[in-house]
Amino acid sequence: MPEIRKDPVFGRWVIIASERGLRPNEFLTASEDSVYKCPFCPGNESLTPPAIYSLPSTDGGWRLRVVPNKYPALVSGGVGEEQPDGIYNRMDGVGSHEVLIENARHGLRLEEMELEAIADVVRAFILRTREIKKDPGVKYIMIFKNHGRNAGASLAHPHSQIIVMPMVPIRLVEEIGGAERYFEKKGTCVFCDIVKEEPRFKKRVVAENGHFLAIEPYASRFSFETWLLPKKHLSHFEDMPEELVLDLASILKNTLGRLYATIPEFSYNLVVHTMPVQEPRAAHYHWHIEIMPKLSQVAGFEWGTGFYINTVSPEDAAAMLNGGKKYKI
Amino acid sequence: MPEIRKDPVFGRWVIIASERGLRPNEFLTASEDSVYKCPFCPGNESLTPPAIYSLPSTDGGWRLRVVPNKYPALVSGGVGEEQPDGIYNRMDGVGSHEVLIENARHGLRLEEMELEAIADVVRAFILRTREIKKDPGVKYIMIFKNHGRNAGASLAHPHSQIIVMPMVPIRLVEEIGGAERYFEKKGTCVFCDIVKEEPRFKKRVVAENGHFLAIEPYASRFSFETWLLPKKHLSHFEDMPEELVLDLASILKNTLGRLYATIPEFSYNLVVHTMPVQEPRAAHYHWHIEIMPKLSQVAGFEWGTGFYINTVSPEDAAAMLNGGKKYKI
Repeated sequence: MPEIRKDPVFGRWVIIASERGLRPNEFLTASEDSVYKCPFCPGNESLTPPAIYSLPSTDGGWRLRVVPNKYPALVSGGVGEEQPDGIYNRMDGVGSHEVLIENARHGLRLEEMELEAIADVVRAFILRTREIKKDPGVKYIMIFKNHGRNAGASLAHPHSQIIVMPMVPIRLVEEIGGAERYFEKKGTCVFCDIVKEEPRFKKRVVAENGHFLAIEPYASRFSFETWLLPKKHLSHFEDMPEELVLDLASILKNTLGRLYATIPEFSYNLVVHTMPVQEPRAAHYHWHIEIMPKLSQVAGFEWGTGFYINTVSPEDAAAMLNGGKKYKI
Repeated sequence: MPEIRKDPVFGRWVIIASERGLRPNEFLTASEDSVYKCPFCPGNESLTPPAIYSLPSTDGGWRLRVVPNKYPALVSGGVGEEQPDGIYNRMDGVGSHEVLIENARHGLRLEEMELEAIADVVRAFILRTREIKKDPGVKYIMIFKNHGRNAGASLAHPHSQIIVMPMVPIRLVEEIGGAERYFEKKGTCVFCDIVKEEPRFKKRVVAENGHFLAIEPYASRFSFETWLLPKKHLSHFEDMPEELVLDLASILKNTLGRLYATIPEFSYNLVVHTMPVQEPRAAHYHWHIEIMPKLSQVAGFEWGTGFYINTVSPEDAAAMLNGGKKYKI
């Protein structure tokens, strides 16, 4: 089973998952293997474990499926507690890993789908999260999407992933801690302040509708990094009321569409940032989505410093996204 | 000039350097541009700013050159202090950025060079650091190398980089803080403990000589991540005595050679981790080098959690590096 190891200096956890190295990579094998069968296409359901959740299509098939990942980063069973290993510490890779197949058509990208179908993807995330968090051992539920080879995707068929974790990841601890310090100092939620400030400044706004705002963040790490923020304060993604779902689907469609139109060979990571599922609602933290286009490689300076060098200012990025101008890499 | 912006949640700094987006990318342009002239090759010295430091070759030319980066991430001048910008904070991108051209031959990789020539590269890093740190405004000197297109390099001619910073980067603050907590708890340097533990355990050791140890770290984030550690405690890289230089050159040559032999299309980032230059010598921190091969893309899960998923255990990686077995991606 996978193993979680702790770096003795940083206290940073790493998942060592050798079995996951065996997963198929369509981008590497499809060209040389003419009989490649996409495990996410209708008719190939036997290539994945049985569905945990699915929505029927009008032709008697399915239009959305959630399945356990066949090559999981974390699995159920094992000991979810730290054990010494020489001078180091480890624990079993306890958790789970699901794949959400967003639609039945291999080549249909998320933002090309009908609004109602994108809304069904959002609803499936919410429903799975509400179900999974009933287990009190579950500490964090990470919802994310890698699209395109440059973004680390191994399969082209549109899909997202849900990784269920036995601890709150360090990035979230830091993010929530930062938001808490802001709240203590200013008495307001930093994300609420961003939601107020950005439409006033205008130059970093990409899209807006009744319930959501899409911006290029002030200190964007990556060229065309884009955040989607609910306007109304809410700490937990899974507590989102139904009346927000269509607006989220709509701003996803709008924003991803602009990014595709502007950036050649657009690849991206999309991550839902939310409060740990077992924590009560909080005034200082505000769930949101971060979209990170992959235009350049993160290199030595970034790894060494934690600093990022971004060669497109968020103001320039927003102007290009709004002007329909093509970005030349 | 470049600008340094602070993320209001994490307190994370980002460098916005639009001019740097204009730098040439040999990997993108060389194929379409038959008159491409490498700015780092002899005869093309006018394509870079004048050398800050160089070593002569026997034929009257040079064998190593340090030049200011023509497309710097940070520059001299400007105000090195935080200023408010709406609800955010920024400062001018104050610092400097040098390129070390490791040899005159376009196609000669660092580990293919003669031992004495690699030692000259190490000595140049030390000399430049000792010179640059005389300015008390300099807080950190980051020495690193990106090799290969997948590792974010834009030019193929072997080179390293030196970025001079007006603050200690957050990654170092965290790393040194972690080492300090370990020291407070156990009374020893965590890196000294690793240097003792690993040769005893054997399975993660890649190479060893009189003064240095090369290992796959216990909680390696990346497949084939490799650390080079001086055996004797020392916090500051630039304080390395001359008698260690040849051993460092030798373990660099040995380790990079094994990585090339094992990993197809090997690309890597190499980063020197060292104590901030203005800080006194410390018992809890130990300079070292981290080599991060780029086999897969860092994807959504990693960005969202700060967790890494590694599909090759450090023990398997060390066995392959020692056995001369080729890794199949």
